[in-house]
Amino acid sequence: AILEVNGNLNCRCVKTASDYISPKRYESIEIRPVGSTCRRTEIIIKLKPSGKVCVNPEAPWVKKLLKRIAST
Amino acid sequence: AILEVNGNLNCRCVKTASDYISPKRYESIEIRPVGSTCRRTEIIIKLKPSGKVCVNPEAPWVKKLLKRIAST
Repeated sequence: AILEVNGNLNCRCVKTASDYISPKRYESIEIRPVGSTCRRTEIIIKLKPSGKVCVNPEAPWVKKLLKRIAST
Repeated sequence: AILEVNGNLNCRCVKTASDYISPKRYESIEIRPVGSTCRRTEIIIKLKPSGKVCVNPEAPWVKKLLKRIAST
């Protein structure tokens, strides 16, 4: 994988997807806040039955998803 | 672990904590939306350097945390 040497060594996502993924396919949503070892927020969706995808925190549908979670 | 047989077989959290955990200690926040195999939303915080804790989605500080994530 492409190693980032500017202090982002522990980032999990090398690239992120912006295209919509239906909530029906989610097993879980993992949010990795900006931390010492990764300088950006990362959002990783685990899919049913398997697989993971890094999604772009700036994508409008991702922002809506997080808002909906916060309001339940 | 206590096995729940009312369709919650795949819930990860048997019980949840409501007391505040400082964001400095988070490695990640995992949200498991209500699904076919678990009838309740589960929020699992992975702690630095290790350890996991299930937190109560209804606890005020958890709701604030999710709102803050949604607004970044």
